[in-house]
Amino acid sequence: MEFHYPNGRKYSPVKNEEKTEKKQKKWSYGKRGMTLEDDINETNQFYLERGIAAIHKKPTPVQIVQVDYPRRSAAVIKEAYFKQASTTDYNGVYKGKYIDFEAKETQNESSFPFKNFHRHQIQHMETILKQKGICFVLLRFSTAEEIYLLDAKDLLLFWERMETGGRKSMTKAEISERGHLISLGFQPRIDYIKIIDYVYNLNE
Amino acid sequence: MEFHYPNGRKYSPVKNEEKTEKKQKKWSYGKRGMTLEDDINETNQFYLERGIAAIHKKPTPVQIVQVDYPRRSAAVIKEAYFKQASTTDYNGVYKGKYIDFEAKETQNESSFPFKNFHRHQIQHMETILKQKGICFVLLRFSTAEEIYLLDAKDLLLFWERMETGGRKSMTKAEISERGHLISLGFQPRIDYIKIIDYVYNLNE
Repeated sequence: MEFHYPNGRKYSPVKNEEKTEKKQKKWSYGKRGMTLEDDINETNQFYLERGIAAIHKKPTPVQIVQVDYPRRSAAVIKEAYFKQASTTDYNGVYKGKYIDFEAKETQNESSFPFKNFHRHQIQHMETILKQKGICFVLLRFSTAEEIYLLDAKDLLLFWERMETGGRKSMTKAEISERGHLISLGFQPRIDYIKIIDYVYNLNE
Repeated sequence: MEFHYPNGRKYSPVKNEEKTEKKQKKWSYGKRGMTLEDDINETNQFYLERGIAAIHKKPTPVQIVQVDYPRRSAAVIKEAYFKQASTTDYNGVYKGKYIDFEAKETQNESSFPFKNFHRHQIQHMETILKQKGICFVLLRFSTAEEIYLLDAKDLLLFWERMETGGRKSMTKAEISERGHLISLGFQPRIDYIKIIDYVYNLNE
């Protein structure tokens, strides 16, 4: 006899455990941003529960090709592909203002390479700035365990420098000069809202 | 010999055409909101291209269970499930303000049933209002081809009425009294930004 989870997935204790382990290894290899993403999600959850801000990560965009509808259980997507996102990953509202950001990390110790960013994300940030939204990046230097908030305006300047033949990265010195180091804590883990108040003059 | 699209999908002219036709039928049956969604996406694209607003539909949230990495082609998602969204479908920025909305339609001619809304979406709207975001619903009466913008505050009042034992829908009269009929056009198809200027006093 077969058992199913409420979402329709078949329950098979031994096999699934093996599969999960394998899958997690694959993921943590492929998605180095995992920890940073987890920390930001937890921080956003903290803000949401306390009524401080409502900021969410957007779902991963997926092109669905084939869906099966097995009897008595939920629809199963049998064939789909990852699509490139046309926006940044996080957005939401804080004190009525539109907040929009992307989070990236590097293992490089002295500079942040631009290969971590896609052109369409940069274009999206330009659009948000034109619409007077608050737009920034959270940049994590994973070896030093330091996270900086850098306004999109500054990021665009460095991007422009690359486009006109300059270096393909921002130095850590440049980031720490123009950006803002975020103090890391237990709850919330990455308290970027505090910095936003200060950087964008949102203190009432 | 096999050919592949840039996204890794196998090219097989005859079969695919059949599949697409079948799939589209399935989708339009399962997702009655298709046309409304298309019209809103086109409207948002219009706003984006002209620098009027930057509002996007969030990707459909999917729980990915199994991913294959075939040689020489893109990762293929082989098993995934639809997840329930924790927010509304559309958000973005207009004149610095956070914009958040959900779009629904009904074939009912005289009232809009609440069964089209989920509790978590209603809760999300409450949160957005507390954060002083602009939050509303676009309600389409498909038979009459009429679309109304109704502020989330009003929607919440009607929802509250249901929760306290009242009717499980809003009448069309109530919606037309408290909401705002949107004129439908060719470009943009559903010009809701015009209404927003008026309803939320955003004219400078």
